[in-house]
Amino acid sequence: MTITVRHLAEWVRGEVLGDGDLPISNARTLAEAQPGDITFVEHDKHLTAWHGSRASAAIVPMSVPVNGRPIIRVADPLMAFVRVVQQLRGRPQEQGPNISPAAHVHPTAKLAPGVSVGPFAVVGEHCEIGANTTLHAGAVIGRYCKLGEDVVLHTHAVLYDECVLGNRVIIHANAVIGADGFGYRVQNGRHVKVPQLGWVEIEDDVEVGACSTIDRGTFGATRIGAGTKIDNLVMVGHNCVIGKHNILCSQVGIAGSTTTGDYVVMAGQVGVADHLTIGEGVTIMAKSGVSGNVAPGARVLGMPARPHREQVRILMTQDKLPEMRRDVMRIKKQLGIVEEE
Amino acid sequence: MTITVRHLAEWVRGEVLGDGDLPISNARTLAEAQPGDITFVEHDKHLTAWHGSRASAAIVPMSVPVNGRPIIRVADPLMAFVRVVQQLRGRPQEQGPNISPAAHVHPTAKLAPGVSVGPFAVVGEHCEIGANTTLHAGAVIGRYCKLGEDVVLHTHAVLYDECVLGNRVIIHANAVIGADGFGYRVQNGRHVKVPQLGWVEIEDDVEVGACSTIDRGTFGATRIGAGTKIDNLVMVGHNCVIGKHNILCSQVGIAGSTTTGDYVVMAGQVGVADHLTIGEGVTIMAKSGVSGNVAPGARVLGMPARPHREQVRILMTQDKLPEMRRDVMRIKKQLGIVEEE
Amino acid sequence: MTITVRHLAEWVRGEVLGDGDLPISNARTLAEAQPGDITFVEHDKHLTAWHGSRASAAIVPMSVPVNGRPIIRVADPLMAFVRVVQQLRGRPQEQGPNISPAAHVHPTAKLAPGVSVGPFAVVGEHCEIGANTTLHAGAVIGRYCKLGEDVVLHTHAVLYDECVLGNRVIIHANAVIGADGFGYRVQNGRHVKVPQLGWVEIEDDVEVGACSTIDRGTFGATRIGAGTKIDNLVMVGHNCVIGKHNILCSQVGIAGSTTTGDYVVMAGQVGVADHLTIGEGVTIMAKSGVSGNVAPGARVLGMPARPHREQVRILMTQDKLPEMRRDVMRIKKQLGIVEEE
Repeated sequence: MTITVRHLAEWVRGEVLGDGDLPISNARTLAEAQPGDITFVEHDKHLTAWHGSRASAAIVPMSVPVNGRPIIRVADPLMAFVRVVQQLRGRPQEQGPNISPAAHVHPTAKLAPGVSVGPFAVVGEHCEIGANTTLHAGAVIGRYCKLGEDVVLHTHAVLYDECVLGNRVIIHANAVIGADGFGYRVQNGRHVKVPQLGWVEIEDDVEVGACSTIDRGTFGATRIGAGTKIDNLVMVGHNCVIGKHNILCSQVGIAGSTTTGDYVVMAGQVGVADHLTIGEGVTIMAKSGVSGNVAPGARVLGMPARPHREQVRILMTQDKLPEMRRDVMRIKKQLGIVEEE
Repeated sequence: MTITVRHLAEWVRGEVLGDGDLPISNARTLAEAQPGDITFVEHDKHLTAWHGSRASAAIVPMSVPVNGRPIIRVADPLMAFVRVVQQLRGRPQEQGPNISPAAHVHPTAKLAPGVSVGPFAVVGEHCEIGANTTLHAGAVIGRYCKLGEDVVLHTHAVLYDECVLGNRVIIHANAVIGADGFGYRVQNGRHVKVPQLGWVEIEDDVEVGACSTIDRGTFGATRIGAGTKIDNLVMVGHNCVIGKHNILCSQVGIAGSTTTGDYVVMAGQVGVADHLTIGEGVTIMAKSGVSGNVAPGARVLGMPARPHREQVRILMTQDKLPEMRRDVMRIKKQLGIVEEE
Repeated sequence: MTITVRHLAEWVRGEVLGDGDLPISNARTLAEAQPGDITFVEHDKHLTAWHGSRASAAIVPMSVPVNGRPIIRVADPLMAFVRVVQQLRGRPQEQGPNISPAAHVHPTAKLAPGVSVGPFAVVGEHCEIGANTTLHAGAVIGRYCKLGEDVVLHTHAVLYDECVLGNRVIIHANAVIGADGFGYRVQNGRHVKVPQLGWVEIEDDVEVGACSTIDRGTFGATRIGAGTKIDNLVMVGHNCVIGKHNILCSQVGIAGSTTTGDYVVMAGQVGVADHLTIGEGVTIMAKSGVSGNVAPGARVLGMPARPHREQVRILMTQDKLPEMRRDVMRIKKQLGIVEEE
């Protein structure tokens, strides 16, 4: 498939500078683009990469000057490029809403118009599913679940009984929502299970990554606030209340009953202990371990997590530790201080 | 649904103090309870929370005094509250034992009475399944597996061939039991797979969390001792022998051929290297990395893990590192010690 | 089943020394072997264990001397033992290639001869599957996927649309290939999803462990080089390019757009930040956190990761920190340096 720069510019309502008749056959990023490709420049800071790129044309911000190759100026180059890639690769749409005859939908479940259910998906008793929601192959939802509109459950996503999902929630493949929390009591030398009778409530516009797990509350809800995005292999323990617009990167683990404010960011492999309060706007840097409450707006690092600036000073001093040790020994020698046993 | 305090007390065989005729409509925890709710007080230390709670009544330990609101005294308030919640929320039971016509059970498999198999579940050749065991939708067990009585495999739990599960084992959704261990040998610059011919043996009363993985042994068994509880996203490597009544919290990873004694506790995100011996009653604190054997009863922390008390002293001194560095430089200056290059 | 040492030696083309008529009934490792068992000795360094073992016979390297019990000398004792175990345990082979009538294969998919598809597996539109490839029960591949020959997808392995797998690739149960990368932009206080339009390309002889996730590229490919082995619960972020013959141990996490050279090894729970270059032959030790590029051949440790030797020196000095602190205080006292406030 070949198309001119001018034609592409029409798709994205951009302004062409340079040769609009140049034919384009593919769309690739700056680093991967080959002659014949169109690419995109997200910010001015990528201009050097654009000059070095083999691409024949680019979609650029309004500020980028012509450099000999044709450009298409737009307000939002990333989203314009997304549109171009989608059109150029042009897979036909999946067939419309459809309940697969190989799915297992309980007769008491209520499905709004436009719901799709893939093969081997299961919808339990008394579930309610909002309009245009899609369950891909093998997605399983237990009894008494409520799903909003435009929800997507990818392949093999699992909802235990009584989970509640808002609108536009996306659950990726093999994620598990609503499994039992990790609650036991010791009785006669055995760990006796505390029944986990609560549920999980996920608000609008949340995305949950592949193989992540969010446990049900013990008696009430584990809650994920609207707009929060959760990466793959993340663990959210029972009774947690996660704020709105949080970012939980891959392999984060949050133990039970912890609360986060809005706009919290946890980088990869962060661990947070149970029953803590993480304030609004907190950033927890990668691999940190948090064992106490964190004040709003703080930026913490390390295990145990300390304020970022403090931790960096400690880390820089650590590099000097062997040298400091030699110094102290020299000083002791010079002062005639004898090593204690 | 509304019910009197006295009626609730009959359910849990408790003693009513105060107004037994008070109507109750819901059961929620101390923090979440609203007027009209019953709540529970697990220990005397929660008395302040009870005084501050909006709940209209509470289930309490025998020692708790009346404070104006009706209370129900019982020996075990948590389990009494569990019973109340179960009764108040009162979902009808799932239908009795049943082999779904949409399941795939191999004709050579032997199922004891009372076994339930959900839609799209698979039971392989020559499996034996004990009485009253439940396979939820999409649970898959390979060939030659043996499951005890009252086992629960949640949705999409996977057992590879030849796994052995005791009685009352619970495997949560998307957990994988018996995948190949991570064993290779370098030959001519390639990693050549060592066939993993062993199996996994899980003793009575073990619970395995969602998306956890327990690899099969190379030639023999990977073993999980009776009563051990494993949280979500935990990895147990091939040939491990985990003791009885261990607690492995979320995202713990144990490399191959490591052995743990009974009553070991590993907190979240702990990592343990391969071929180690972790003694009985050891506690490994959150995020620690263990690279050597740990003596029975020890409590270790850090990366590398050290005895807890030692590590805490080091961590406290670390806070003083920048200050120590300044001190050493001052001392050197005062003593006329010249910086070495 | 009982068989003589001589008969076993014929299976593995080994040389018998000692009593070839001794009957053998089982094959177990040195530590687990009982009288009547054959075991194996992989290296000379295991000779003491062999002398202490209860096994009645052993498969040994050419260098091992007779010690009274019969031995079978072979060039590669491990693989010879594998063969013996496989024969002794002798499960009948699974039935030949077969498309389960309970699978869901789209009519536009092209399956080469010898392909097996288990019950409840799904093959999407326009997929192409090479000869002798096996999809176990419930494995799901999306639209436009291409799989090579002799590929194995274990139970519930998931491939999103457009994934490409080479020959002899193994994907273990519940692993997810090609889920959306974790890409958002903040607009009006919300995290807005960047469509993930790329795909995943996995070269020949790669193995991916249970519950691991490899996200699709944003516009292009996330790539896994030939011969790379990935353990359970590993996360590879979008746009990563992993080299050939890498070893990624359990619970490793690699953030987006990072590149690794060939023969990189990451031990358990390592985390690597985004947009980094990890050189050929690098070893990253367990639990390390890498936040900068690593030069070829380096061996790094710690959080943040430093060259191994440097980090070990720092760690050793850390043990001395409390003592150093006391020393510095003594020195200050002796020199009359007053504590600053």
